Amino acid sequence: MSDTTTDATGGDSAGSEGNDSYGHKPFKRSKSHFPDRITADGRDGWPVEPGRYRLAVSRACPWASRALVSRRLLGLEDALSLAVADPIQDDRSWRFTLDPDGKDPVLGIRYLSEAYDARERDYPGGVSVPAIVDVPSGRLVTNDYQQITLDLATEWTALHRPGAPDLYPEPLRAEIDEVMEGVYRDINNGAYKCGFASSQQEYEEAYTALFARLDQVSARLADRRYLVGDTITEADIRLFTTLVRFDPVYHGHFKCNRNKLTEDPVLWAYARDLYQTPGFGDTVDFDHIKRHYYQVHTGINPTGIVPAGPDLSGWTTPHHREQLGGSPFGDGTPPGPVPPGERVTPPDAA
Amino acid sequence: MSDTTTDATGGDSAGSEGNDSYGHKPFKRSKSHFPDRITADGRDGWPVEPGRYRLAVSRACPWASRALVSRRLLGLEDALSLAVADPIQDDRSWRFTLDPDGKDPVLGIRYLSEAYDARERDYPGGVSVPAIVDVPSGRLVTNDYQQITLDLATEWTALHRPGAPDLYPEPLRAEIDEVMEGVYRDINNGAYKCGFASSQQEYEEAYTALFARLDQVSARLADRRYLVGDTITEADIRLFTTLVRFDPVYHGHFKCNRNKLTEDPVLWAYARDLYQTPGFGDTVDFDHIKRHYYQVHTGINPTGIVPAGPDLSGWTTPHHREQLGGSPFGDGTPPGPVPPGERVTPPDAA
Repeated sequence: MSDTTTDATGGDSAGSEGNDSYGHKPFKRSKSHFPDRITADGRDGWPVEPGRYRLAVSRACPWASRALVSRRLLGLEDALSLAVADPIQDDRSWRFTLDPDGKDPVLGIRYLSEAYDARERDYPGGVSVPAIVDVPSGRLVTNDYQQITLDLATEWTALHRPGAPDLYPEPLRAEIDEVMEGVYRDINNGAYKCGFASSQQEYEEAYTALFARLDQVSARLADRRYLVGDTITEADIRLFTTLVRFDPVYHGHFKCNRNKLTEDPVLWAYARDLYQTPGFGDTVDFDHIKRHYYQVHTGINPTGIVPAGPDLSGWTTPHHREQLGGSPFGDGTPPGPVPPGERVTPPDAA
Repeated sequence: MSDTTTDATGGDSAGSEGNDSYGHKPFKRSKSHFPDRITADGRDGWPVEPGRYRLAVSRACPWASRALVSRRLLGLEDALSLAVADPIQDDRSWRFTLDPDGKDPVLGIRYLSEAYDARERDYPGGVSVPAIVDVPSGRLVTNDYQQITLDLATEWTALHRPGAPDLYPEPLRAEIDEVMEGVYRDINNGAYKCGFASSQQEYEEAYTALFARLDQVSARLADRRYLVGDTITEADIRLFTTLVRFDPVYHGHFKCNRNKLTEDPVLWAYARDLYQTPGFGDTVDFDHIKRHYYQVHTGINPTGIVPAGPDLSGWTTPHHREQLGGSPFGDGTPPGPVPPGERVTPPDAA
């Protein structure tokens, strides 16, 4: 929060001053610490292989949740296993206290930082999710949240399920990239800039840019079902993981309160459409989301009390977006059911 | 906040630990410190007299705002003059920094506490608004926020304007009292109990009671224009001053976030109806309200950043509540225009 860059996802997690609470620290430097890529040809030393890697996430984190959605849509659950961290970090950051004996059963570690240390001893940076870990060596491969999902879509194709969609279609990449850039700056990261602003002026600038961009995106989506083309793409995934957090967290906690998501009929229907699409809503854990933000960010919520609202029952109501045409998976098919060990509790059952 | 009573309007204003930020401290004791009454017969030594008393308020404060509304509806502006404090207290509490030279021009004091001291030297309690001060002696007469408006309605009748409504009609008092009791406990004070809860459980109990009562009141108002009888009464005034603060402050700042006021069609139309009635909306200063809560309660908003939202333009939209019948002022008439020195800036012009 002492940094003055405008590219701040910055926040205040215990023990990682200047980071946001996922450990991202994109202040005046490259956007990730370990940008190695897992590719089909293995050119960075990390070839795509089934069962070799483990994806570590927090279901609270919007950046990690992109990978959760992509992995589901592409049917990579068997090829790339999943470690889910406790939504509440302690002073050693993300931890596997949800697992038996507080250890990730595959990596055998208590803290995600152990995989970072295995990669680079006494690594001084933050520990962030999403992180992909090489299971045999226990070493972190990458925490490049901007690249991970693109590589799942384009490099892991040999392991995609039959009927997997093309989330980053070649002919649309320029348009997808352009849309994602504005969404990233003003919405994904913009919500954080509102919440962690260190002055009224900084906050108001972020707020203005956030709602201007939301209005622009809302207008774009008024007569088209998806952001780019007529199928789900990476751009939709990235917008979704922010929109799903908007009313439960960003509206109050980050003061993004011109209006709720539910008050924008277009964006609210768009978000519900995605939420109800297999691979999206079934990755969302509102309990993890709410507890993480409200309990970890003591700098903006010193009491640690977690709001009981909002009423989330609307997420499963009809959205009528089918009427706009488009087809979620193009020539493909929806993903199958969530693997039994990865199911989340839906909000109405919570 | 260290008090454990459930009757806590408690909060954390600078320099008055355990109080809410208006100075009320209704913890396990009588509800006011100076319960003297100004009456027609002057039995407490304070007879109703035109021009003798001065009403000190903050426009931020819901308890003081009741008196602002009553005074307008009853046409007491000339008889009972008005001192408006800065919405931001300092460590000596309410101050008249909005006035020339930082002094109330009639009382000649910088701090409301000077009137308290004139009444009782070294008075150890909190300084609260609303407060009525005897102008000749400069002494506080009463800060009994539950009684002040009832006395304006029933004891100051000789000074009411022609056409003033009866805000506390004799035949309806039992019903009004009963409605107000639940509204006070669960809504007026309930919002504060949510915001200043010292544990998750305490918060959730207050939240549950708050929304249960709002639902009950909403059902009551679905087919009747006002809470009791078919004209505006004290009960409506007391509900209004909380509802008007709901979305700008309580929803986010106090975590009263099951839904916004604007998401309850009945209560939202009811609140707009009152807001658009002369004597209600013309007393409301959203700027004072927002700055006060978000800047004074550093215990729950340490950054002091004031949200830019919500969009308040809906307050002046049609409410269609006339269709329910009733008549706001009974056999009376609406109050005249706001005296020039007391005008507030409407939100759409802010």
